[in-house]
Amino acid sequence: MDDKASGPVLCFGEVLLRLAVPVGGRLANVSNLAGHVGGSEANVGAVLAQLGHEVDMITALPTSGMGDLCEGELRRTGIRTGNVLRADGRVGLYFHEPTPGPGRIIYDREHSVFAENADQFEWSALASTARWFHVSGINLALGGKPAEATLAAAEAMLAAGVPISFDVNHRTSLWEGRSAEEADRVKTLVGMATLLFASPQDISRVLGKNFADDRRAATEAAFATFERLETIASTRRSNDGDGQRLSARVDQRSSSHETEPARLGQAIDRIGSGDAFAGAVIDGLLRKLAPEECAKQGLAAAVMKHAIAGDRWIGTRAELQEFDPFDAGDVRR
Amino acid sequence: MDDKASGPVLCFGEVLLRLAVPVGGRLANVSNLAGHVGGSEANVGAVLAQLGHEVDMITALPTSGMGDLCEGELRRTGIRTGNVLRADGRVGLYFHEPTPGPGRIIYDREHSVFAENADQFEWSALASTARWFHVSGINLALGGKPAEATLAAAEAMLAAGVPISFDVNHRTSLWEGRSAEEADRVKTLVGMATLLFASPQDISRVLGKNFADDRRAATEAAFATFERLETIASTRRSNDGDGQRLSARVDQRSSSHETEPARLGQAIDRIGSGDAFAGAVIDGLLRKLAPEECAKQGLAAAVMKHAIAGDRWIGTRAELQEFDPFDAGDVRR
Amino acid sequence: MDDKASGPVLCFGEVLLRLAVPVGGRLANVSNLAGHVGGSEANVGAVLAQLGHEVDMITALPTSGMGDLCEGELRRTGIRTGNVLRADGRVGLYFHEPTPGPGRIIYDREHSVFAENADQFEWSALASTARWFHVSGINLALGGKPAEATLAAAEAMLAAGVPISFDVNHRTSLWEGRSAEEADRVKTLVGMATLLFASPQDISRVLGKNFADDRRAATEAAFATFERLETIASTRRSNDGDGQRLSARVDQRSSSHETEPARLGQAIDRIGSGDAFAGAVIDGLLRKLAPEECAKQGLAAAVMKHAIAGDRWIGTRAELQEFDPFDAGDVRR
Amino acid sequence: MDDKASGPVLCFGEVLLRLAVPVGGRLANVSNLAGHVGGSEANVGAVLAQLGHEVDMITALPTSGMGDLCEGELRRTGIRTGNVLRADGRVGLYFHEPTPGPGRIIYDREHSVFAENADQFEWSALASTARWFHVSGINLALGGKPAEATLAAAEAMLAAGVPISFDVNHRTSLWEGRSAEEADRVKTLVGMATLLFASPQDISRVLGKNFADDRRAATEAAFATFERLETIASTRRSNDGDGQRLSARVDQRSSSHETEPARLGQAIDRIGSGDAFAGAVIDGLLRKLAPEECAKQGLAAAVMKHAIAGDRWIGTRAELQEFDPFDAGDVRR
Amino acid sequence: MDDKASGPVLCFGEVLLRLAVPVGGRLANVSNLAGHVGGSEANVGAVLAQLGHEVDMITALPTSGMGDLCEGELRRTGIRTGNVLRADGRVGLYFHEPTPGPGRIIYDREHSVFAENADQFEWSALASTARWFHVSGINLALGGKPAEATLAAAEAMLAAGVPISFDVNHRTSLWEGRSAEEADRVKTLVGMATLLFASPQDISRVLGKNFADDRRAATEAAFATFERLETIASTRRSNDGDGQRLSARVDQRSSSHETEPARLGQAIDRIGSGDAFAGAVIDGLLRKLAPEECAKQGLAAAVMKHAIAGDRWIGTRAELQEFDPFDAGDVRR
Amino acid sequence: MDDKASGPVLCFGEVLLRLAVPVGGRLANVSNLAGHVGGSEANVGAVLAQLGHEVDMITALPTSGMGDLCEGELRRTGIRTGNVLRADGRVGLYFHEPTPGPGRIIYDREHSVFAENADQFEWSALASTARWFHVSGINLALGGKPAEATLAAAEAMLAAGVPISFDVNHRTSLWEGRSAEEADRVKTLVGMATLLFASPQDISRVLGKNFADDRRAATEAAFATFERLETIASTRRSNDGDGQRLSARVDQRSSSHETEPARLGQAIDRIGSGDAFAGAVIDGLLRKLAPEECAKQGLAAAVMKHAIAGDRWIGTRAELQEFDPFDAGDVRR
Repeated sequence: MDDKASGPVLCFGEVLLRLAVPVGGRLANVSNLAGHVGGSEANVGAVLAQLGHEVDMITALPTSGMGDLCEGELRRTGIRTGNVLRADGRVGLYFHEPTPGPGRIIYDREHSVFAENADQFEWSALASTARWFHVSGINLALGGKPAEATLAAAEAMLAAGVPISFDVNHRTSLWEGRSAEEADRVKTLVGMATLLFASPQDISRVLGKNFADDRRAATEAAFATFERLETIASTRRSNDGDGQRLSARVDQRSSSHETEPARLGQAIDRIGSGDAFAGAVIDGLLRKLAPEECAKQGLAAAVMKHAIAGDRWIGTRAELQEFDPFDAGDVRR
Repeated sequence: MDDKASGPVLCFGEVLLRLAVPVGGRLANVSNLAGHVGGSEANVGAVLAQLGHEVDMITALPTSGMGDLCEGELRRTGIRTGNVLRADGRVGLYFHEPTPGPGRIIYDREHSVFAENADQFEWSALASTARWFHVSGINLALGGKPAEATLAAAEAMLAAGVPISFDVNHRTSLWEGRSAEEADRVKTLVGMATLLFASPQDISRVLGKNFADDRRAATEAAFATFERLETIASTRRSNDGDGQRLSARVDQRSSSHETEPARLGQAIDRIGSGDAFAGAVIDGLLRKLAPEECAKQGLAAAVMKHAIAGDRWIGTRAELQEFDPFDAGDVRR
Repeated sequence: MDDKASGPVLCFGEVLLRLAVPVGGRLANVSNLAGHVGGSEANVGAVLAQLGHEVDMITALPTSGMGDLCEGELRRTGIRTGNVLRADGRVGLYFHEPTPGPGRIIYDREHSVFAENADQFEWSALASTARWFHVSGINLALGGKPAEATLAAAEAMLAAGVPISFDVNHRTSLWEGRSAEEADRVKTLVGMATLLFASPQDISRVLGKNFADDRRAATEAAFATFERLETIASTRRSNDGDGQRLSARVDQRSSSHETEPARLGQAIDRIGSGDAFAGAVIDGLLRKLAPEECAKQGLAAAVMKHAIAGDRWIGTRAELQEFDPFDAGDVRR
Repeated sequence: MDDKASGPVLCFGEVLLRLAVPVGGRLANVSNLAGHVGGSEANVGAVLAQLGHEVDMITALPTSGMGDLCEGELRRTGIRTGNVLRADGRVGLYFHEPTPGPGRIIYDREHSVFAENADQFEWSALASTARWFHVSGINLALGGKPAEATLAAAEAMLAAGVPISFDVNHRTSLWEGRSAEEADRVKTLVGMATLLFASPQDISRVLGKNFADDRRAATEAAFATFERLETIASTRRSNDGDGQRLSARVDQRSSSHETEPARLGQAIDRIGSGDAFAGAVIDGLLRKLAPEECAKQGLAAAVMKHAIAGDRWIGTRAELQEFDPFDAGDVRR
Repeated sequence: MDDKASGPVLCFGEVLLRLAVPVGGRLANVSNLAGHVGGSEANVGAVLAQLGHEVDMITALPTSGMGDLCEGELRRTGIRTGNVLRADGRVGLYFHEPTPGPGRIIYDREHSVFAENADQFEWSALASTARWFHVSGINLALGGKPAEATLAAAEAMLAAGVPISFDVNHRTSLWEGRSAEEADRVKTLVGMATLLFASPQDISRVLGKNFADDRRAATEAAFATFERLETIASTRRSNDGDGQRLSARVDQRSSSHETEPARLGQAIDRIGSGDAFAGAVIDGLLRKLAPEECAKQGLAAAVMKHAIAGDRWIGTRAELQEFDPFDAGDVRR
Repeated sequence: MDDKASGPVLCFGEVLLRLAVPVGGRLANVSNLAGHVGGSEANVGAVLAQLGHEVDMITALPTSGMGDLCEGELRRTGIRTGNVLRADGRVGLYFHEPTPGPGRIIYDREHSVFAENADQFEWSALASTARWFHVSGINLALGGKPAEATLAAAEAMLAAGVPISFDVNHRTSLWEGRSAEEADRVKTLVGMATLLFASPQDISRVLGKNFADDRRAATEAAFATFERLETIASTRRSNDGDGQRLSARVDQRSSSHETEPARLGQAIDRIGSGDAFAGAVIDGLLRKLAPEECAKQGLAAAVMKHAIAGDRWIGTRAELQEFDPFDAGDVRR
């Protein structure tokens, strides 16, 4: 499916600043917040850049020092920022409270410079040199310019023959109050994608039919509906009484592969683990790995991410290949 | 049992400053100590104030900045401090070493301004407007003025028809060297209480009879002995090889309700979890909840507290009601 | 001028969360931000509450944990929060970069829950029990509901005979793009105030005449124009080559008092020093101190504030009275 | 075997500075590193000194502040430093990344002042007053002067009748590229030791025969080969799906004792746990404890160490004796 | 005066734990306290031990981890702790607020294990091997056992021919409420000392005559009154409008030497600077330096201390000799 | 002199990791070290990259996470790292103790991966596209491969017509023990440079003649000796009793411009201020600014750097142009 062997992977989406309450604290008594640069598409791009791919981030950031912070962090992970738009405005924020329970996110991302400038990109020019295009459903949930620009971008990519990966990334709080037309855009985009990241619940929402937890029925229905779709990938989080476990699955039209569930142990930060999975799966497809290898590599990246604070997987290809999510092992020295 | 629908809940006890060694450290090599304001009765008061009750703290604090720190923290959680006595002296301290093992507390609370001024309160005036009175056995273990004042206070409350909740809160190190007369005060106070927080071991000590782990036998014996007693509440910590679990129980004369044990996962700070339980149970009784609802709400508060650093539960009624101690769930966003 | 000897001082304005880059850092490379609750009127209220006055904050805060943080901090300093409105929305933020140079503030306060709900207060009811009303020009610079509500509030106060203090608090970046009508509201409010905090530059802007640095000419012109005005107070920051100095001045119709300039030494945090000054001057007037005493006490609070991190002066009346801004002294032990 | 009842325990080896990435961080994005003084033999010495033994560290440290740091930390734990050599040069470093997985160590210890000065000690003089000599295989893995000096030291100890304990402490990365002659030194040293710390894998390497996990076969073969050997001690780390467990074993010629596996719970820092075990076992032998007591005490020290950040066990004899690795218990207060 | 060329310098006094509010904070809003081990005599001992002298600390510490912390820190600086008494009880504390102004200390040192066990030392045995004895007036200000033991110790030293240095170290808050007899002990001890650390104000208090700032008149009167006295040393802090300066002075019977005042620049922590001065002067006398060299070296140590956080000077003899308090210089690399 | 208007600025030198003791600490008692990526040429490159120039770093870094850290930080500031060589080995380190006095650096940079691989670059290929080449005398002080490669690089640049800037950057400790031939390389390189950063002392060392503080005599002698030299730039640090001041000077063959000395106020981190100056001067020359503008801009960057922790200036062109080193100003908001 990937006919171009060169050119950048384009990631289009909002870059957010996470402000995180330390473990044990609550927003109500916080005195220090850790800052982490994130955003789903940027997190995927960071995995790909660290694995050696050329990655271009398409986003808008403020002209202020907040924009410098975000752009510098993109560059640090190896993402190219030559197409980042800088404009007056605010950066999208989210506050993260780790406890009690699994944690809580409070978004403060409205009126961001991205939301107000997402229509400023020249998609046909960008598409002309691109190797791959990645986007998530968060853009659609934001409505307005981000949603419209995402559809325009995808059309330009299709026109230029650039494969599209789409991560549904459903966020309930962002979709509240959106219209049916807005929700339909998700289906439109699934129809344009070659690679889809979606759970059975996501597919159920898109197709308007409840597949409950029958993962193969869901993916088969999706393949039947969307002809461009070649691969559907997802993770599954389970809790068997002795702690959290994570498994990964990659479905293609004629095959499906699911890993064993790996124990997550003491998860330090689960935010961005889905993006780490997505990045590693895309890397696998770009490198023509077999689907079971993609699932395995995706699981490794996602499990590793749980041990890394911040929104992004940090590592090298050698570390990703060495890491065995099923073996606790001993200190390497 | 609660005929007054308004007026403050009075909490009487010492406010302490915890100085906590960071995780992984020991007192022997510490270079920074985290300060947390606590004290059993203040912790109970903080739960009630955050849940919307009017709460008055009756305590004594130094005139120094140490007193400002403690009084400010009481106010922050919504507790009223108009009846706090400020006098020259020292604040009671305790040092907390989290590891190895379950942790260790070193008290440095003798000669505190509370111990030396606990006899300075006008209990009949305070009782005249109060809705509820809460106190713990720590006051009795301190002996001297705190113990005597606690009995005087309880008598004034009985005279004014104010219901009393009493948390036995046995602390072995504080009771060392106390006389039999001093120990008898616990029994006296149990006899004055409407609501008792006590484990079977506590009841065994009070009644001089060993109930081992037979919780219903213990509570029935207590109900038989103490006629004012309407409710006995307690938690039970167990360890089944796969980590700590906590269950909650509420006994009344004609019923008893015990929750399933909930997994505690990675407990960040267990100090104050009994106080969180007590506060949530008192709230339930003040709101005329059924005893099983009180147990369930108490368990939720106690489990939540394990994930919060510091002596106090921090949250809102909405969070308390949403929190399901039996479901790890996913990040809410 | 203050005929009421009791009742709360009302402070009306936005409560902001400052997110501060540590000393030596820049936004572009920050990984941790210190959170400080502030806002000009809340800072003034905090001084007054700590000095023993009854203070009511009139503001709107989010229903989220961010609102809990801000409301808790108000209570910690002794401010009453019974009239704080909680509603869905965001809290106003500002980012502070301490260096290089004197520091830089990046506002991210648009669309805040205060800006969108400032019209929700019942001013005549609030005025009926108030002793004093304090507000700053920032409300006017925000335009829309905050500006309109400020005028409505001031009118209700005048009608109820409540004295008004007004701190012009000019912020260039907030006034950018405002209309002439909006700017005229400053003049309107000066005309309603008994006590004005304003520099000669502020008065020049209001009267449309340049008084340069002639402080007495400016205040005399202001007294001539605004008949309700009884007192004008201000500080002056100078830099004589050997570090910053601060002096304080209080003008009344028939007198003017200016302190010597005090050395600021190593200023840790100058934000909020004007509010500390204002709070201490209002306290002086409420206590019928002579104007030179008001100036002296205001200077002491402002100089003390430079040594305290965060937006608010923290102290007691005893400390304020002991503090001599002209004597470095030795450690008190 | 220990005929001398007094005189110092000599520990010979390199003192290293660990620079540790905080939990959740990676070297690639670290901004702060925690410094911990360590080194296998110094860690063993620290246990013995804290348990009341006279301990002399034989090492070389830089004349710089780095040397002051290391020497001060040795003294803090009670180790005598009168025989520490100070010379120009660098201290050996290692960087520790705690995650993902079980962690990773990057050594930066070449060309250290120890490696270049390990031949500067007068072993016969030191042996003349010594009670015991402890050393690890790391010295041998360093090759050159440390390896040669270790053999010279051991010979001097044998000549003076000082018992030798030897911890094989195999570090794969340090042995890379060493010659067969260098590897043979391990066998030579095992032949000089009274007490050996070695896993079946270690014994397999030394004897050139694979004992797999048959611990008794391995120790019997070692006893058969090395006539001076009286005791072989080791720990075993297992992972039964519900978290890590650790057991301890002490073999003598006619007996072998192995503890149950104890759960490690949330391990904060496992580095140095083998040294804590070794120190506690040596203490047991010096005090003529039965082998099963040595195993039990060694396990307690090793489990406690997992909860302590830094390379060294920190505690007192009372704490070591109280600690029950099989009981999670409750906060002691 | 120092006939013994060997044997330990004995320092007798309380070891305290400082709990320090961070710069910019106030006790009222502190959440973290830095711990620093101190105590005037221990600070002097730390200077001497780091400069190579044998130093024995005579004090009492708790058996708890707090005692381990203090004893470990003494050892870290090279002080011997073989004569430290460990007993049940509490360690003396003091809280330090750095700002506003020059800072404020709140003592919480009553009922300490030192205050209750200061009479437990065998002074004639200790005196028999000592080279020097150092003590401060704080012991006398504590009254009771510390004061009585100090006099008993000094008498034993005189009997054994051990020279005594005495630092008056007047602390107003500690002397409040002491009787005239208690105050007279200061004079008694001055009469037993060979070396006195005292300002003109101290001498005025002792002799009951006001020398104001006439330093030579004060020292001449002291020499005239106290026949054992050979040397009087002191520092003087001045503030000439451009920041703090410090000068040092050493008076002997026939000479007096005073350095120029050195600029203190940005003083990080002035606590313990007097002790650093005292330690360096004692070192000079032990090494038979000329008085002007003693003054110069004492000034260097005191100025260096202002740049070091915590109660103790940290350095080496080489650093002390290289340091020029009158030259800001450039980074040494 | 700069005929090429495009192509990268090449910076050739070692990238170091600074491990910094916090303010108030000493290496002897440090428990946390801040990590800052630096190195003189990389610092200059960071200024140029932030000001919008294309910058290529030519250096060698380890394959380990330490290399990832350094390379990521270069990218963060906008420097291209496509020509960075990654190889097995260690990164050069230096430890920084900020106090007492002006601070002290302890190098631990021997045997670094740069020192061992500095000969691996293809200079003629690199020169063919370069616009400018910057290097410092530190490379020469390292001797061996770095020194030889620096000369080879400079020759390739001359051959390709690429202008060279050379910062003498004398470091006494690095030159200790170097031969006369090695020292002569400095003179050789000065002879190849178009732009020289050198103090009169540097020029005195190069020309073997003492110019003391006569800056014009020194630069005139240098221009007379070295025909390629067009510009000599330097800063001067002075201390007039009221704190440090810094001035900047740019000499050309027919003119010389020196700024007034600017007060440094509270300098947070002076390391790298010379590199900030150099970067801003090179930017000025690349943009054909007049020499007095270069001096002014260089001074602004150097003064700003004193307020920024870490080795690098952080800012934008707008900030550099706005910053007035002679005006303390007020908070910008």
